[in-house]
Amino acid sequence: MSLLVVGSVAYDGVETPHGRVDRMLGGACTYISLAASYFTNVSIVAVVGEDFDKQDADLLQQHGIGLEGLETVQGGKTFFWRGVYSDDMNDRTTLTTDLNVFADFDPKVPDSYKSHRYLMLGNIQPGLQRAVRRQMNGVKLTGGDTMNYWIVDHREELLKTIADWDFLLINDSEARMLSGEHNLKRAADKIRALGPKTLVIKRGEYGAMLFNKDGYFIVPGYLLEQVFDPTGAGDCFAGGFIGYLAERGLDLGNGHIDRKELARAVIYGSVMGSFCCEQFGVNRFRALTRAEIDARFAEFQDFTQL
Amino acid sequence: MSLLVVGSVAYDGVETPHGRVDRMLGGACTYISLAASYFTNVSIVAVVGEDFDKQDADLLQQHGIGLEGLETVQGGKTFFWRGVYSDDMNDRTTLTTDLNVFADFDPKVPDSYKSHRYLMLGNIQPGLQRAVRRQMNGVKLTGGDTMNYWIVDHREELLKTIADWDFLLINDSEARMLSGEHNLKRAADKIRALGPKTLVIKRGEYGAMLFNKDGYFIVPGYLLEQVFDPTGAGDCFAGGFIGYLAERGLDLGNGHIDRKELARAVIYGSVMGSFCCEQFGVNRFRALTRAEIDARFAEFQDFTQL
Repeated sequence: MSLLVVGSVAYDGVETPHGRVDRMLGGACTYISLAASYFTNVSIVAVVGEDFDKQDADLLQQHGIGLEGLETVQGGKTFFWRGVYSDDMNDRTTLTTDLNVFADFDPKVPDSYKSHRYLMLGNIQPGLQRAVRRQMNGVKLTGGDTMNYWIVDHREELLKTIADWDFLLINDSEARMLSGEHNLKRAADKIRALGPKTLVIKRGEYGAMLFNKDGYFIVPGYLLEQVFDPTGAGDCFAGGFIGYLAERGLDLGNGHIDRKELARAVIYGSVMGSFCCEQFGVNRFRALTRAEIDARFAEFQDFTQL
Repeated sequence: MSLLVVGSVAYDGVETPHGRVDRMLGGACTYISLAASYFTNVSIVAVVGEDFDKQDADLLQQHGIGLEGLETVQGGKTFFWRGVYSDDMNDRTTLTTDLNVFADFDPKVPDSYKSHRYLMLGNIQPGLQRAVRRQMNGVKLTGGDTMNYWIVDHREELLKTIADWDFLLINDSEARMLSGEHNLKRAADKIRALGPKTLVIKRGEYGAMLFNKDGYFIVPGYLLEQVFDPTGAGDCFAGGFIGYLAERGLDLGNGHIDRKELARAVIYGSVMGSFCCEQFGVNRFRALTRAEIDARFAEFQDFTQL
């Protein structure tokens, strides 16, 4: 079933211990939609400037991603982010954030996308996430991401926004910040009481956890021999997770959740996050195939299943 | 089959965000043997001072642990360690280390223990670990632990010692220190090339990984609602791991390793480590039953298996 992804399309400058790239395609919407495109039909709603390269649009199109909702602001510049990673790549420092056209992003869902059944709201202002959802007709499953800035400085608006999401997908430090609980089990209980029936907590190299009414499921992280660039890995997780649910036509509620399918969605999310780290930016997705994805899924089963 | 455990028996003073205990039974040998006692016959070789309380010896005996090798030094004092944990309990600061009688520990294996088939060498001076192994006849499986001090300041002696161990069980920072590799997959390859055919890397709250010639297996950590005191959790992991192997009469080499059994050993290790954290010191083991252990093993299957 078709998936709509909303979020940032950006250019990133990234420095890791393995090298430096001054300008490359990035942004949450980009990563989510590329990862999800291996599983299902994907369309995006996003904004770029006049400087957006044709070859970057081509890459998205080659993955079958619908670009009718990709607005180009004439005379504007695309969102630019630049950061540098620590030696172990567990921390990063932001050096530049030029919002550019993203500052006035007013997402409009094209009519042809309004009946998409799956909706993934990348990390943007909570009010905009809500506005997008209101434009949709008959969404079957809505999930989204957020970040520390919205949790701390726009808490009320964020709480109003996530209250009717089917799932929230955040990292462990965000989960602790949102709940005020250091312990992740208690944090998960508190967050699920805020609305999202399903909570996915990403833990970077340590894997991911899914919490719902039936309990929880934990997948350890994939052991890469070399992490080139972790930028976008969490968004690729999101893309793999909701992409698989959309491929299978699954929802997350109403008491008929197939536990195995949920666990598979978490594993496919982890698989897509792991591929993302293997090369700079979106480069791994230029040649990645579904067969490679399924082979890594089998590897996950190998190293986690009795 | 019978297991011999060698290491420290100590008194600990511990402060965590949940409270403070000035003096309680501790030490690697204590935790390992208590955890292993739920699976197999256990005897220990260790040293204590005249101040060692009868009720602490009683606790070990109630778990069926053979104390013929527990030497009491008249006029001496038992090893004492005191430390304080950070708020999130991921770090701890040592405040006091009084080696006392442990400084002159010269382990002598009683004749009746020399034919034990399983040997677990807790973290002590590598030369002593080697001396213990030499006293044994026909050991089927030897594993051991070590720490940063031996890795950095006594490297040659440590390398000579672990060269013929069947498994080495250390934490992730120790694995990085020993191998000089930050990446754990490459670290594991290098360490296995030093001798131990099987390497178990403990990652605290994030779980544990086992590496051998067939690949690797990862178990995420158990999500406790409350961690009271993590002291001894890694040793309890070791006790559960080797205890289960001994219970089943398994070894780790010669091409006939049952993958499921290995994975079960890692899970039982994780189970015992998780129980350890639920109360201060060894208190959880005063009332813990095998039925509770097997129930938690089933929980691990629940949250990790498809």
